Amino acid sequence: MPKYVDHDRRRDEITDATLAIIARDGIRAIKTRTVAEESGWSTGSLAHYFGSSRELLLGSMRRATEVQGRILRTYRDKSGLTPLEALYGIVESLLPFDDRRLALNRIFLAFCGEATADDKLNEEISEYFDNIRRFVRRAIVAAQDQGYVRGDIDADNATLHLCALIDGFTLHALFDPQIMKDLQARAGLAQEMVTTALLPPTAAPTDMHAKP
Amino acid sequence: MPKYVDHDRRRDEITDATLAIIARDGIRAIKTRTVAEESGWSTGSLAHYFGSSRELLLGSMRRATEVQGRILRTYRDKSGLTPLEALYGIVESLLPFDDRRLALNRIFLAFCGEATADDKLNEEISEYFDNIRRFVRRAIVAAQDQGYVRGDIDADNATLHLCALIDGFTLHALFDPQIMKDLQARAGLAQEMVTTALLPPTAAPTDMHAKP
Repeated sequence: MPKYVDHDRRRDEITDATLAIIARDGIRAIKTRTVAEESGWSTGSLAHYFGSSRELLLGSMRRATEVQGRILRTYRDKSGLTPLEALYGIVESLLPFDDRRLALNRIFLAFCGEATADDKLNEEISEYFDNIRRFVRRAIVAAQDQGYVRGDIDADNATLHLCALIDGFTLHALFDPQIMKDLQARAGLAQEMVTTALLPPTAAPTDMHAKP
Repeated sequence: MPKYVDHDRRRDEITDATLAIIARDGIRAIKTRTVAEESGWSTGSLAHYFGSSRELLLGSMRRATEVQGRILRTYRDKSGLTPLEALYGIVESLLPFDDRRLALNRIFLAFCGEATADDKLNEEISEYFDNIRRFVRRAIVAAQDQGYVRGDIDADNATLHLCALIDGFTLHALFDPQIMKDLQARAGLAQEMVTTALLPPTAAPTDMHAKP
């Protein structure tokens, strides 16, 4: 009988091992040797699936965003959640507060940086951002349709606002361990972000700009 | 008479030319040839000051953040502005809506990405973020001290919130030309961000989470 090899599964094992190392020790720790140890596959196997360490990192980013996409679809399709609960879940799933989400955000930021000088990569990263915004927007519109959020709120603005909050807080946390710790410990952070992004325009105190 | 060469000035001319290209054509357009053309210095001169294109980019990022630092100090020291006006000015100076600020944000993002795998660079980027937060925090506290902003608002939280908004909106704009255009055209965006980040905790409608 011919030996059956599930190549997709093996690739996933290798990229999952890579992401585990990134969460634990950062991207600087990614070497053929460390990934071989973590995954249990030989350096030869690794080279078979990923021709270079950049290929391995790119494959790992795609693996991380693919898993994230699956989670987003789960929230989209989940029955039994209110639209706001689904929105909280979506936001929570993107914040860098466990190994999976930390690795996702670290490797994604690495390629955001690289994408500033690489058109093809830029397109891929842009599509990912666009995709996230689409999921967030859909959840916001569902919340409006079902009366959880005021209908006069501009869904595009609220979507961009919420995504900006998620990515902005994440960026600062990635470069400051104390901010990471504080945010991780802040109960209800996802709800806070959603509430802020969905504030009706009239909620802001207009007298703030006046002279005291 | 010996020929006097102002090396600092020449370095600034080269990095300013680099930043001008980055604003116009992106980081991908940085080549010895294009920088030589833009700056008016020979490729030999360029090589004298910057040993590699990475050194040139790093020098250009440092030039951009140095200029940004000077602008932040101006807002800190400016008399005749209310603390809120100074805060709007600080936020405005960081948003990527002209050549200087676009180049700053593009090159900074490139090195944020690289910093995920480089400890020394990570330290430099972290310090820059920390520095920006310090300027923003000082302006917020001044606004509180002078009665423009409520004293019960946590200055650290508001600072992080405001910086997250600036960097989050910028990140999405950098990867989506339409978002960039829309935000650039949005009058009062800096004020909006400040108002949102400085909302008193009670301003958020608490009934938003209830079933309709």
